[in-house]
Amino acid sequence: MGYDGNLTPLFDCSCLPKRSAPYTEFFGQDIIAVSQFDRRRLAYIFQRADEMRDLVTHGGVSDLLRGYVLACLFYEPSTRTSASFIAAMHRLGGSVIPITQGVQFSSVSKGESLPDTIRVLEQYSDVIVLRHPDVGSAQVAADAASVPIINGGDGIGEHPTQALLDLFTIYEELGGVDGLKIAMVGDLRYGRTVHSLTRLLLQYDVSLRFVSPDTLRLPLNLMNTVIDSGTNVRETDSVYDVIGDADVLYVTRIQKERFSDTKAYDEVKDAYEITPALMRLAKERMVVMHPLPRVGEIHTAVDADPRAAYFRQVRNGMYIRMALLAAVLGQA
Amino acid sequence: MGYDGNLTPLFDCSCLPKRSAPYTEFFGQDIIAVSQFDRRRLAYIFQRADEMRDLVTHGGVSDLLRGYVLACLFYEPSTRTSASFIAAMHRLGGSVIPITQGVQFSSVSKGESLPDTIRVLEQYSDVIVLRHPDVGSAQVAADAASVPIINGGDGIGEHPTQALLDLFTIYEELGGVDGLKIAMVGDLRYGRTVHSLTRLLLQYDVSLRFVSPDTLRLPLNLMNTVIDSGTNVRETDSVYDVIGDADVLYVTRIQKERFSDTKAYDEVKDAYEITPALMRLAKERMVVMHPLPRVGEIHTAVDADPRAAYFRQVRNGMYIRMALLAAVLGQA
Amino acid sequence: MGYDGNLTPLFDCSCLPKRSAPYTEFFGQDIIAVSQFDRRRLAYIFQRADEMRDLVTHGGVSDLLRGYVLACLFYEPSTRTSASFIAAMHRLGGSVIPITQGVQFSSVSKGESLPDTIRVLEQYSDVIVLRHPDVGSAQVAADAASVPIINGGDGIGEHPTQALLDLFTIYEELGGVDGLKIAMVGDLRYGRTVHSLTRLLLQYDVSLRFVSPDTLRLPLNLMNTVIDSGTNVRETDSVYDVIGDADVLYVTRIQKERFSDTKAYDEVKDAYEITPALMRLAKERMVVMHPLPRVGEIHTAVDADPRAAYFRQVRNGMYIRMALLAAVLGQA
Repeated sequence: MGYDGNLTPLFDCSCLPKRSAPYTEFFGQDIIAVSQFDRRRLAYIFQRADEMRDLVTHGGVSDLLRGYVLACLFYEPSTRTSASFIAAMHRLGGSVIPITQGVQFSSVSKGESLPDTIRVLEQYSDVIVLRHPDVGSAQVAADAASVPIINGGDGIGEHPTQALLDLFTIYEELGGVDGLKIAMVGDLRYGRTVHSLTRLLLQYDVSLRFVSPDTLRLPLNLMNTVIDSGTNVRETDSVYDVIGDADVLYVTRIQKERFSDTKAYDEVKDAYEITPALMRLAKERMVVMHPLPRVGEIHTAVDADPRAAYFRQVRNGMYIRMALLAAVLGQA
Repeated sequence: MGYDGNLTPLFDCSCLPKRSAPYTEFFGQDIIAVSQFDRRRLAYIFQRADEMRDLVTHGGVSDLLRGYVLACLFYEPSTRTSASFIAAMHRLGGSVIPITQGVQFSSVSKGESLPDTIRVLEQYSDVIVLRHPDVGSAQVAADAASVPIINGGDGIGEHPTQALLDLFTIYEELGGVDGLKIAMVGDLRYGRTVHSLTRLLLQYDVSLRFVSPDTLRLPLNLMNTVIDSGTNVRETDSVYDVIGDADVLYVTRIQKERFSDTKAYDEVKDAYEITPALMRLAKERMVVMHPLPRVGEIHTAVDADPRAAYFRQVRNGMYIRMALLAAVLGQA
Repeated sequence: MGYDGNLTPLFDCSCLPKRSAPYTEFFGQDIIAVSQFDRRRLAYIFQRADEMRDLVTHGGVSDLLRGYVLACLFYEPSTRTSASFIAAMHRLGGSVIPITQGVQFSSVSKGESLPDTIRVLEQYSDVIVLRHPDVGSAQVAADAASVPIINGGDGIGEHPTQALLDLFTIYEELGGVDGLKIAMVGDLRYGRTVHSLTRLLLQYDVSLRFVSPDTLRLPLNLMNTVIDSGTNVRETDSVYDVIGDADVLYVTRIQKERFSDTKAYDEVKDAYEITPALMRLAKERMVVMHPLPRVGEIHTAVDADPRAAYFRQVRNGMYIRMALLAAVLGQA
């Protein structure tokens, strides 16, 4: 059945640039949960993320991931997370299949299982970022896949790249993590990012302060884990108790839906808003962080304060994702 | 009206790398229907697709389509088909304008005709893949366009790249097509992929077996075409009649909507499911194919069987589309 | 907290290709409104757009914007405009974060403000194109952003790249603008493109003819601006008054919703349709333009007339956007 004409070969494969993946720490691994990261592996990723910052900051253009294809499979929209991964891949010369809308209307609506969808997409791509509303779906995908899966958030489960970028921001802004007093403020009960960051921080010598209304306190089992770790920890319902000596103020979004009536919500909202007046009580060298989007938890007048780190935090997300993509593809 | 300042030219066009399109077999052609492909042209595309597989498998990075832009115009979502074309274009260094959602909300909702939309998009792109719910729309687009149109499925009409990847998979898995006994199983009445593949197979010396419930038999006119071609053909309603000596088992999705009641559907579903037990009756060298998505027609326990070719079939789709894109752009 | 192992640096930044942005006319500027463009700056952009045409026409492949990332932030769908910007970026070697659907479902639905969304996106990207339904939103975004914002249309406000491509088309088709008689036909009351183009044309020595039904005449204040400029101008309700000596016929879409009853709409529609019969009354060297999409204002039989410039006009949009993107990024 061979072609009977005289077809000139398209490629001389021996002359083409090759993608090679030497053995590296994260090569071929899935990124599913923060529990995969000990201090050594965190330091590894942070050093790589630092190099990514240098690359971008100095206007360097790299082809580190040229020829690699990332599939962004988002079963629920997340403009921020998908944009961050897309930018990360592009800035390293790689390309992206964006499936960030309408997954539900296509194969999935025909009843295709997540493992099947993953097995199809891995035929086209070298790495897959999955965002899915169901807890545990990232692991289901990883079990099905032969390419690395990066968990871009699985419901109220994990969102490890967010936790990594949070910790990386503390590290970058303050030059390290050990010895810091870190206060988490707002909805500590449902705030997924608070839970993951807290777990990462337990590996360091830090003091933790949890500031929330009574109905939104840190879940019991996580609080017990913190206590059992021997970490210095206190809970309070007033941000004034921590503002004076906190090195980090990690503020989270308080959702109206968590309250039975608008009045209760408004009271809490006002009591926890970070304002310029409050910032005058804070140390000169400290940082305010927020996973964004915010809806009033931090007054916009704080944005100009050099201690406001939340937009730099966003940028760090891109560097962390550049580092992770390069790492699991064996290129970093 | 010329600029009065001293503008340094941006490009020295004589020094820039150039896209050139020497005369090649498929240069500038539209890919609308399987009837465009005789054995010679099939062999041509398959040889190119083979080269694409080599390229990807060996981790080679090619710029064959660098500087070319593909517009993916999808009037109905098809995650699989669009992802496959996007990956194909990226892996050859080209880029993509993805219009895979919301076409209906924009220009089209303002009443723009398909020919006008095509004439607009061809101003931006070098080739257009069209997915459209209406039979014949690909030809309408091709008539309007000066760039090549590739039919990515026009309703119950044609979906030629699917048929090509199906045939290519048989060719790759079994080393050829002549002499094979090929069984199509499931919904043969509405299954577009079965019809197109059957038409392609009539060009080869094959035996065909059509296995379906009575209400989902191959349409009369296609069956007559098969008979008139002199091809060895049989119909049956039992997969046990063919499993012993089939070289290819091409399984299709049976849709619940085709049945008047759930009980009738469940009976058929169970009777046609491909299971490990059934596979024990099959030849050692044969392949099971499925256009996917599946919803139970093939038990997941079959996935580990080396004869299960359906995910390799998906990957072949990318190679075929790489070959077609390069071919119609005069680069292969 | 440094990594204790021996990590080989990924990049030798001194050896990487660098993006540099020498001072150029438009470097770092936002493109918000046509009032930013005087004749000198128009000539600048047009000369660059001409070079872009040469590049594309001669099949040249450029890496002028390699390493740059464009964020396409579309709060309302506009297939045409987003496709044009995406193609423009790709053809210069840059990459795109497409946020063209579903913005409303993600961060924004959580109550994020436009300035916050912009401040997040600029962490990932080097330039942002914004399409938004609210007048003035492009300026709001520009005030928040540290990267250039290009207005891709803000409601009934401005859509400057459309006006630039319209003027560029006149310039390219007829070799200049001074001395021309330009007729605008159709809905001159609500047609945003007519208003912007008219403002740009007042900088040139042109004669203007406004042809519309009485209910869709040019707004009073714009008409007064035209009169005050000393430009030769006339209004009429018959296209026959202008067809004989117009150099440009700029036709716009007449929307059914503007009329109280279907009969009134149909009468107007028929009276203003550009047909081959009408074109026989026009000069041999003139051009018919339309911002598209059309829904019957220009008969498709006119498409083959060499004076029909509306699809070339679309392509000019890509060249203009290539020029603008390169210019605000300091590369042109």
